Amino acid sequence: MKCKKCGSKAVVNMRQHKLALCKEDYLEWVPEQAERFIKKYRMFSHADKILVAVSGGKDSLSLWEILVRLGYQADGLYIGLGIDGGFGYSSESHRLAARFAEERGLTLHIVDVEAEYGESIPVISEISQRGRGKPCAVCGLTKRHVMNRIARDRGYDVLATGHNLDDEAAVLFGNTLRWSGEFLRRQGPVLAEMPGMARKVKPLCRFYEREMTAYALLRGIEYIYEECPFAEGSTSIYYKEVLNKLENNRPGAKLTFYLSFLEARERGLFTEAGEVRQELHPCTNCGQPTTAPGLCSFCRMIDKVHGEIEIP
Amino acid sequence: MKCKKCGSKAVVNMRQHKLALCKEDYLEWVPEQAERFIKKYRMFSHADKILVAVSGGKDSLSLWEILVRLGYQADGLYIGLGIDGGFGYSSESHRLAARFAEERGLTLHIVDVEAEYGESIPVISEISQRGRGKPCAVCGLTKRHVMNRIARDRGYDVLATGHNLDDEAAVLFGNTLRWSGEFLRRQGPVLAEMPGMARKVKPLCRFYEREMTAYALLRGIEYIYEECPFAEGSTSIYYKEVLNKLENNRPGAKLTFYLSFLEARERGLFTEAGEVRQELHPCTNCGQPTTAPGLCSFCRMIDKVHGEIEIP
Repeated sequence: MKCKKCGSKAVVNMRQHKLALCKEDYLEWVPEQAERFIKKYRMFSHADKILVAVSGGKDSLSLWEILVRLGYQADGLYIGLGIDGGFGYSSESHRLAARFAEERGLTLHIVDVEAEYGESIPVISEISQRGRGKPCAVCGLTKRHVMNRIARDRGYDVLATGHNLDDEAAVLFGNTLRWSGEFLRRQGPVLAEMPGMARKVKPLCRFYEREMTAYALLRGIEYIYEECPFAEGSTSIYYKEVLNKLENNRPGAKLTFYLSFLEARERGLFTEAGEVRQELHPCTNCGQPTTAPGLCSFCRMIDKVHGEIEIP
Repeated sequence: MKCKKCGSKAVVNMRQHKLALCKEDYLEWVPEQAERFIKKYRMFSHADKILVAVSGGKDSLSLWEILVRLGYQADGLYIGLGIDGGFGYSSESHRLAARFAEERGLTLHIVDVEAEYGESIPVISEISQRGRGKPCAVCGLTKRHVMNRIARDRGYDVLATGHNLDDEAAVLFGNTLRWSGEFLRRQGPVLAEMPGMARKVKPLCRFYEREMTAYALLRGIEYIYEECPFAEGSTSIYYKEVLNKLENNRPGAKLTFYLSFLEARERGLFTEAGEVRQELHPCTNCGQPTTAPGLCSFCRMIDKVHGEIEIP
């Protein structure tokens, strides 16, 4: 297999794009494509201050690397969740995120959930009894809250996450199985903006997971290989398997599924007649928008866990 | 496992409904459910004349049996496709459909494609070069044409087909992967009526394929076990496998996928702003509605195959 650009030996073969590339051309191709997606979906400009949510995994570290490479003003945010799983998941991912920033002279904000909110994610999950024995719902709620807070408090215009195509297609697949109009209308590379909140964007949403793995490896980015120990057996991993079955049979199926969805949404396919938009109010404690009157879900959860603790 | 109704030994266990039944209660339950779906989706009444498209397989023969059992005026239509596959697929299915009708004193219309249009389906497919080496597209086009023609010429109000949940969910899955608004709006238990055409209905659309197999077996209906020899490797069979993977993991997933789709469609989820409805004209030869001016697709195909042959 030869590189389509220079004819030398290819190291990456993307059947879904009918494209094989050598290392050098692949490492150029990925940022070029990312730039194209950033412009196509009007994610941000060079004037915007961007906060990248960094988990220590291949996607978020590569995203940060790519944005800096493309000349964007991108800082990182690492959230310490206090998850061990027998191999120090959180401490190892913290170490890798911090080293990545240090080696490149980048700014990394660090928020440790236990230090700021009194308990780690697994403990908050246990006390609050949300999410049927798994801390994933609590973790998602907490990360969203912290990302919004830091973006707002530190004056970032944009919050960027490393969701790749496999992530997005799996979420879309779940929303489709339930035909949730609300979720179908909302999903996309750019989340509809809300007053007082940073715009949320997903610059990697059109890259296959294996494309990002190849990028991180070829670029020499050191990342945490392990998945979060709580991810095992999750619905989203299961949906990814189903979609991979489709993809193996028809290279490009996953991308077509996601892109034709975006086009259909653009055409207005999911505009429901008589749709009622939920009104948002600022949470009386943290000020972030919420549909409920009074406290938002996050503040109610923390209130339940430690009534006496002051919520930053 | 005990029958939920009478406590005797159950022979059918439907995890998707959390329901196990004995033979007698199952044979009552299926027609009761069918009656419920016929009413819920306003398919037809006892005053309507119904034409059942009968292939000789378990679904269509069971459908016919159920409609007659429920007291509806239902005649059959068998279309001879001229497919052999090394085991006499068409002749065997013809024999079984004819015997079913004869044993019960029912009216069965028979249309033999080769006798009426000059060539069998595989030959028409070869000559007309439609469908990339597979006769499935030609076969579908021909069956639709013949069903519409017989229903119209013989004064039937309704055309009923034996599509089960697995069939419908597979079609829906395919339409979803491409996010075709037009197809998503159109798919359902009752096809939108067109002037001069019988209403098309699918009374079995909420029964799992294995529920219909169990019904045919327990009722002692003799049907053709073999699939059409051309079905092997088809996209729809592949989609059924994917959906079965989902179903095995979560009993009821297939039904939820289909029913929540129907609900979303009812709510108006797929009402596209600026949707353009294609106008229909009667075909200048056969009179059936078509989007093209002049001949419909079927008549154009037959014209190509045998210009000199008169099209009935």
